[in-house]
Amino acid sequence: MQIALDTVGGKFAPEAIVEGAVMASRCWNDLTFILVGDPKILPRLLEKSDADASRFIIQTGPQRVDDSESPLEALKLKSRASIFCALEAHQLGEADAVVSAGSTGAQVVASIQKLGLLEGVKRPCIGSYLPTETGRTFLIDVGVNVSCRPIHLLQFAAMGTIFRQYLEGIEKPRVALLSNGEERTKGSHVTREAHELMSIVPGLCFIGNIEGRDLYSGKADVVVCDGFTGNILLKFAESIPDMIKRCTESVRQECQSSPAALDHLLRSFDYQEFGGVPLLGVNGVSMICHGRSTPKAIKSAIGEAIKMVNLHVNQHIRTRLSTIGQWSATVRTRALIERMRRRSSGEKI
Amino acid sequence: MQIALDTVGGKFAPEAIVEGAVMASRCWNDLTFILVGDPKILPRLLEKSDADASRFIIQTGPQRVDDSESPLEALKLKSRASIFCALEAHQLGEADAVVSAGSTGAQVVASIQKLGLLEGVKRPCIGSYLPTETGRTFLIDVGVNVSCRPIHLLQFAAMGTIFRQYLEGIEKPRVALLSNGEERTKGSHVTREAHELMSIVPGLCFIGNIEGRDLYSGKADVVVCDGFTGNILLKFAESIPDMIKRCTESVRQECQSSPAALDHLLRSFDYQEFGGVPLLGVNGVSMICHGRSTPKAIKSAIGEAIKMVNLHVNQHIRTRLSTIGQWSATVRTRALIERMRRRSSGEKI
Repeated sequence: MQIALDTVGGKFAPEAIVEGAVMASRCWNDLTFILVGDPKILPRLLEKSDADASRFIIQTGPQRVDDSESPLEALKLKSRASIFCALEAHQLGEADAVVSAGSTGAQVVASIQKLGLLEGVKRPCIGSYLPTETGRTFLIDVGVNVSCRPIHLLQFAAMGTIFRQYLEGIEKPRVALLSNGEERTKGSHVTREAHELMSIVPGLCFIGNIEGRDLYSGKADVVVCDGFTGNILLKFAESIPDMIKRCTESVRQECQSSPAALDHLLRSFDYQEFGGVPLLGVNGVSMICHGRSTPKAIKSAIGEAIKMVNLHVNQHIRTRLSTIGQWSATVRTRALIERMRRRSSGEKI
Repeated sequence: MQIALDTVGGKFAPEAIVEGAVMASRCWNDLTFILVGDPKILPRLLEKSDADASRFIIQTGPQRVDDSESPLEALKLKSRASIFCALEAHQLGEADAVVSAGSTGAQVVASIQKLGLLEGVKRPCIGSYLPTETGRTFLIDVGVNVSCRPIHLLQFAAMGTIFRQYLEGIEKPRVALLSNGEERTKGSHVTREAHELMSIVPGLCFIGNIEGRDLYSGKADVVVCDGFTGNILLKFAESIPDMIKRCTESVRQECQSSPAALDHLLRSFDYQEFGGVPLLGVNGVSMICHGRSTPKAIKSAIGEAIKMVNLHVNQHIRTRLSTIGQWSATVRTRALIERMRRRSSGEKI
C-alpha cells in the first residue's frame, strides 16, 4: 500500500509529518510513501531520520493553503498546493490514501473535486471522537455541512455506523440523533423527519434522540448532527482538557492542605447558584428555574425577579427594539442578492 | 413588591420552593408572596418555617404539568395548573413577577399566552449562564426557538445586552455570535446575515463571531445562538461538573502517590491521540488531521488510513446507501402533511 502525505499543511509541518511517516514505516513493513512538499527540504529531513529511503518517493507540491484562505479561491490560484498534488496522486491511483494536517476546508473541497463522491452519497461529512465515561463516541458531522436535510443526517448515520463497525469491530454501533429533547417530537422539522427515517431504515441500531447532557455518558457509539452544531460542540469539547488541567492542578496543589479547593472549583459550575433565568421578551417577569432547584436557588431567582422589576428591564427592551427594526430589511435584501449571485456563479455555499 | 411562586413544579417542590420564599422574605423586607399550589399543604409548610405568615398569600393551583407533557395540551386540559394560576395573578396585576421551577415548556407557552409579548419582540428567548475563566457569560437562546431568522438573533443580542447591563451593571456587554468559524463568512446564511445586522445596528458592542473553543475564555459577555444549538451546548456544559468531579476525585486520591494519574486522565481528552479522521463520502481515502498534529498523531492517522483501505470501508458505504434511498421519499411526504396539518390548526411549532 502507498500513502500520499501532505508535508506542507499543519502547524508543525514539515518536520512532524515526515517524522510521523517514518514512525509509520517502522510499524507497517509493506507500506511506501509519497511525500508531497518542498523537494529541497524533504530529502534532508529523510536523511536525518535514518529511514529506509527506498520506501519514500518525494513529489513536488510546495504551495501552502492557510486556514484563513477561501478553499475555492485557493483551488483556483494554487495549482501546486501540497494537498491538491497529494489528492491528484490518489486520483491517478498512485496512492491508496491521503493524509493531511493542513486546512480542512481546502482538503474537503479538493477531495470532492479530485476524488468525487461515492455512489449514492449526497454530502460528504467528517466524524470526530469525543471521550465518554466508557470509551469514546463518534460525533458526525463536525463541520462540512452547515445545514442539512433529513436524508443527509440519515446518510451520516449510515456512514458513521460503517466506520465504527469496520474500523473498530463494534458489531452494532448504537446511533443517536442529537436534539434538544429525547422525545421524537423535539427538534426542528429536519431532526424530527430524520428521527423518523432512522427509526424505519433497516441496518441501523437507532436508539433515538439524545441531549447534550448524554454525550459523555457513552450511551451512543455514533451521534448524528448537522455540521454547524457539531463543529461548535467539538471545539467546545476540545477546550475542556485545558480547563480540567488548570482545575486539577489547582486542586492538586491544595489537596494536601485544603479539601475546600475542590468545592470552590465546582461551585463555579453549579447552575443552582445562578438561581433562575428570565423568559425575555414577554410582557412581564417570568423566572424559569432549574427543575432541581434548591431553596437557595429559589431565593436567588426571587432576587433576580426583583431586579428585573425594579430596573424596568422590559421598558428598556421595548425601547431598544423599536430602534433596531429598520436595519433588518436593508440587510435581508443585501443578503438575498449575495445568495443569488453565488448561486448563479455556481459557487458552493 | 409581590412575587407569585409556583410551588408545584420542580423536583423538590413544594418544600424547596416554600423554603426559598421564606429565605427571600428575610432578605427583602418589603416583599410579599403569592404561593400558588395545594391549599391543604402550604399552610402547614409555612407554619413549620416560623415565617411571618402575614406576608404570604396562599392561592389554589394544585395541578402539575410534567416535563413529558405537551405544554399546549396541558394548557388546554389543566386550567388549574400552578404555573397558569401564578401567571394569571401576574396578568391581573396582583403579582409583579412569577418564579417557577416546573416544566419550562409549559412556563414559556403560558407566559406568552397570559402575558403576551413585549412591543417589538418577535420571539421570546431564554438566556443562561456559562462559567468562564474570568466570570460568566450569557448564552442566549438556550431552548425556546429551535430555528431562527437573523432578526431573531439580533433581538436576542439586544435583550441579552440589556439584561447584563441592568442586572449586573456591565456598561457595554460584549456580544458575540456563535458560529463554526470566526470569519464573518462562516456559518449558515442565517448567521451570516445576523452577523451583518449586528455589525451595523447601533447600541450593540458586537465583537464578531466566536467558536465553541472561545466559550470558556470569557471573550464575550453575551453569546447569541439559536435555541437548538444553545440547548445542546448548555446541557453538555451542565454535564461537565460531574465529569470534573469524578476526574478530580481520582486525581485527589492518587496525587500523593502518583503524578501520572493526571496525565492519564488528560490523555483521554487528547484529540491528538486519535490521529486523523476520514472525510467520509468521497471516492477515496482523505484523512483529515488536526493542524497541531504531532508525529505520533500523523502515524496514527496513517494507521487509520490503512484500515480504511484494507477494510474496504467505501465499498460498504456504497452498498449501504443504495438500500436506504427509498425510505426518504415516504418520510418526507408524511412530514410535509404533518407540517401542513399543524399550520392549518394554528399550532406553534
